[in-house]
Amino acid sequence: MIEGVILTPLKKICGDKGSVFHGIKSSDKGYAGFGEAYFSTVNYGDIKSWRKHKKMTLNLIVPVGEIKFVLYDSRISGKSRGRTFSVIIGDGNYCRLTIPPQVWMAFEGVGKGLNLLLDVANFEHDPEEEERAEIEEFPYE
Amino acid sequence: MIEGVILTPLKKICGDKGSVFHGIKSSDKGYAGFGEAYFSTVNYGDIKSWRKHKKMTLNLIVPVGEIKFVLYDSRISGKSRGRTFSVIIGDGNYCRLTIPPQVWMAFEGVGKGLNLLLDVANFEHDPEEEERAEIEEFPYE
Repeated sequence: MIEGVILTPLKKICGDKGSVFHGIKSSDKGYAGFGEAYFSTVNYGDIKSWRKHKKMTLNLIVPVGEIKFVLYDSRISGKSRGRTFSVIIGDGNYCRLTIPPQVWMAFEGVGKGLNLLLDVANFEHDPEEEERAEIEEFPYE
Repeated sequence: MIEGVILTPLKKICGDKGSVFHGIKSSDKGYAGFGEAYFSTVNYGDIKSWRKHKKMTLNLIVPVGEIKFVLYDSRISGKSRGRTFSVIIGDGNYCRLTIPPQVWMAFEGVGKGLNLLLDVANFEHDPEEEERAEIEEFPYE
């Protein structure tokens, strides 16, 4: 595993009229403060290429569909430098993926229908603190 | 409108590979702190009956489907005492609905597919601070 990355299994509680899906609590491991919650979707087979945040911790939850995340650690002073990690979360594996700052992340739509991602981030979106890279730049497996 | 209730139009930003849907930022009007983010679903035609929180402010977003919310103000010392408010939010009307503590709320699945609700609440779920009531107890229109 990459240092600082946390994969937390979450509960879905089914009821007669609908369900409740856990997301994140302020007392949960990996919670890093609140700046913004926003959704992203990614089409089946499409890859949203590498991005890295300078100071933002991401807490990612896929309530609908399935999304593959690939992470790459380029941090100079880390035990997991050069390591990759990939996981599919969503319908079949309902988990929260916590990604610390400075770790590269790309993601791909795996479900054939809607693939919906919620990010609960500890800062508001700021293009200045985000870096992007083409998919060829790091190993995407 | 009921005192303290806020309906905020939100943006959906479409891209080639998917979209980004705004949710809530810590600088937004209606943001009351972070305790927990969780999802609920409600089946088409089903009503999840009245509930009222003693101290929790709800920030509700419907990224998938359509949900009707009906609110009832039973606060003794309010300008909108006895007033109801209803709104459908989701696919056709992408908004955030902020509900202050002490206002009754019931909701109903309007979309025929998945109706998904995100609540960004300022406290963690606590059954002690929630009251429930049968649908007949207040005017549901």
